[in-house]
Amino acid sequence: MMVSLFQPVRNTIRCARFISSFRADDLHITLTDKPKPKPSDDNLPFGKNTSDHMFEVDYTPALGWSRPVIRPVEPLKIHPAAKVLHYAQELFEGMKCYRCVDGKIRMFRPMENLNRMERSAVRSGFPPFDRFELLKIIKKLINIEQEWVPYSKNCSLYIRPTMIATEPCLGVTQSADSKLYVITGPTGAYFPTGMKAIRLLADPQYVRAWPGGCGGFKMGSNYAPTVAPLFQAQKELNCQSILWLFGDDHQMTEAGTMNLFVLWTNENGEEELVTPPLEGGLILPGVTRKSVLEVVREWNEIKVTEEVITMGAFIKALNEGRVKEVFGSGTASIVCPVGQILYKGQELHITDTEDVGPLTKRIYNHINEIHYYMKPHPWMESIDIDADESLRNVTAN
Amino acid sequence: MMVSLFQPVRNTIRCARFISSFRADDLHITLTDKPKPKPSDDNLPFGKNTSDHMFEVDYTPALGWSRPVIRPVEPLKIHPAAKVLHYAQELFEGMKCYRCVDGKIRMFRPMENLNRMERSAVRSGFPPFDRFELLKIIKKLINIEQEWVPYSKNCSLYIRPTMIATEPCLGVTQSADSKLYVITGPTGAYFPTGMKAIRLLADPQYVRAWPGGCGGFKMGSNYAPTVAPLFQAQKELNCQSILWLFGDDHQMTEAGTMNLFVLWTNENGEEELVTPPLEGGLILPGVTRKSVLEVVREWNEIKVTEEVITMGAFIKALNEGRVKEVFGSGTASIVCPVGQILYKGQELHITDTEDVGPLTKRIYNHINEIHYYMKPHPWMESIDIDADESLRNVTAN
Repeated sequence: MMVSLFQPVRNTIRCARFISSFRADDLHITLTDKPKPKPSDDNLPFGKNTSDHMFEVDYTPALGWSRPVIRPVEPLKIHPAAKVLHYAQELFEGMKCYRCVDGKIRMFRPMENLNRMERSAVRSGFPPFDRFELLKIIKKLINIEQEWVPYSKNCSLYIRPTMIATEPCLGVTQSADSKLYVITGPTGAYFPTGMKAIRLLADPQYVRAWPGGCGGFKMGSNYAPTVAPLFQAQKELNCQSILWLFGDDHQMTEAGTMNLFVLWTNENGEEELVTPPLEGGLILPGVTRKSVLEVVREWNEIKVTEEVITMGAFIKALNEGRVKEVFGSGTASIVCPVGQILYKGQELHITDTEDVGPLTKRIYNHINEIHYYMKPHPWMESIDIDADESLRNVTAN
Repeated sequence: MMVSLFQPVRNTIRCARFISSFRADDLHITLTDKPKPKPSDDNLPFGKNTSDHMFEVDYTPALGWSRPVIRPVEPLKIHPAAKVLHYAQELFEGMKCYRCVDGKIRMFRPMENLNRMERSAVRSGFPPFDRFELLKIIKKLINIEQEWVPYSKNCSLYIRPTMIATEPCLGVTQSADSKLYVITGPTGAYFPTGMKAIRLLADPQYVRAWPGGCGGFKMGSNYAPTVAPLFQAQKELNCQSILWLFGDDHQMTEAGTMNLFVLWTNENGEEELVTPPLEGGLILPGVTRKSVLEVVREWNEIKVTEEVITMGAFIKALNEGRVKEVFGSGTASIVCPVGQILYKGQELHITDTEDVGPLTKRIYNHINEIHYYMKPHPWMESIDIDADESLRNVTAN
């Protein structure tokens, strides 16, 4: 790596003005002197454990991006009038790295996430940054946190890049000030006791996304409205998640925070894997969704289609015995079988809870093998960086 | 006021468990020893100035609501994994108090805002609280900040109650922990140099709210998606705000952060004041909207209707010379005349920028007179509380 032209002056951690992005070369690292005990890999819950260090960088219009820092995880100090706390000006990404069978740590398709993050940032009115510089920094963070990457197979280190609007001003406008940060945490096997099919509530009274809205972007504002309906579905109706419907014809769009796939025999008698299309902006362009499509297309055994599926067409197929498998896809589970759908008080039975379809299982195994590098694959990206480089700016806390 | 049964023990500020709400009687007040200089009332911007003190109370499932505190405004310490920063789990209210002509400070219809806040809290999955206790506390806060209430007519103290989800966990679920806080700040005349009509962009490519969404609730998630389109409208198209359209028939819904009113001669030849209806959940139930409806209905001179207005019907009326006035309503401006609408590249001219319709002006003057108590009115609520009570728990910082 080259030495930055914009080394900080004395104790200021600002970069020189007019830099269009922060740079990995400018990274300042402060290590914790109080490392936390690491949780057991058994029954690791999602999102509850944060590792020791985080990445953080701030933007102001006058100074541009500040010097990027990796530092111990501590509460952020946010002004109570900061726009993120009032107008939801925030976005995030979710990605994982794995301790592979050769002992090396690798990330799964990180640029897919960072490309999507850039699109969300533009849609949210956040300042631009260089995704490749961010990737370098995330790799440094993972290197520092490498003992936080679980040793158990099926566990991984979850990586959460986030942008928030920090300007302390209550006008509903683009934020002058922004913060970009990344936290990580070990996360467990989604199916610690084997794959289990979930039950979804499909209730047309709640709508997740709309044409002209932001359903196709990973913005915080897509999630808050889903929380109370999900709580109700779980508490009152024994459903684990929600199948979000759209339109008078009740199109299936997403399953909770997952994309949705249906394997059926279509009206023409062909075996077909269908998922709702990205056009229209109702569907989050999931990295796992894209990977599933690419994997199954590469197998070239089944027709793969991105097309609207209405509840009417689905129920007709179900009644005619043409629905074979339904599953969600996402970073957390890779694929998650759907066993039942509760729709208009009617129980649609696809499969028993313990009964997982062969395609669902095959996709899961295939991508899981890629994650742990049981089969080397270009989707897995090394986190190797020059050790000297990575430690160049380290200071003790 | 009665002494609370749940006085805190030693230096813990938690209330006893099982309290269903925080209580004004439990309030602990710490005053700043570094009061900030107050800005001049001239050209006070909206939302940029925060007063010296804020109210804050926290909820955890194990302990219920903590002891409520009024303390100097300082940054909040928020865990980087807090749900508010990722999933937009946040809501707010906006209300004002005024220094009236008799020298007393009064709030405008505060329970309207706090009732709406309760509805937003339920929809957002936040824990319940007693709105009347919150009102008492807000009155105490205003008492403490009374020198922050501007002396100029047309200026006021803006009050911003907020709830945020503070649980540090990345699962998309209801937050175990929550924070409720209130900040205030002096805000200026919306029209310091006289009322001016604004120009709106009506672009159907962006949709603010939809049936089954949360457009009828004051949740942060409604606002983030509007920020980039607004920036574009202001920067590229010289529009001050956006007229949000809905549906294939391009229904007019809201004007920026304001509700929308049209005064026209309807197809039956009647003079009519129309605003889009609340049913359907597309429209925020504005307190000023409700007040305008009540005022004009009380005058009983013009027909008042809550009904869908499509762009088609509006343009037809405009072409036939039947559109008399268009204005937005909101806490910031009371009413704000709309002069032009840019729609599909077409300039719809309603009025010149300096030319304000008589009904718009009359409503503005009427509500403005209520605000400053030039005409005593039950909508204005005293902030008087027993001085001894209000200072009972005060300690110096």
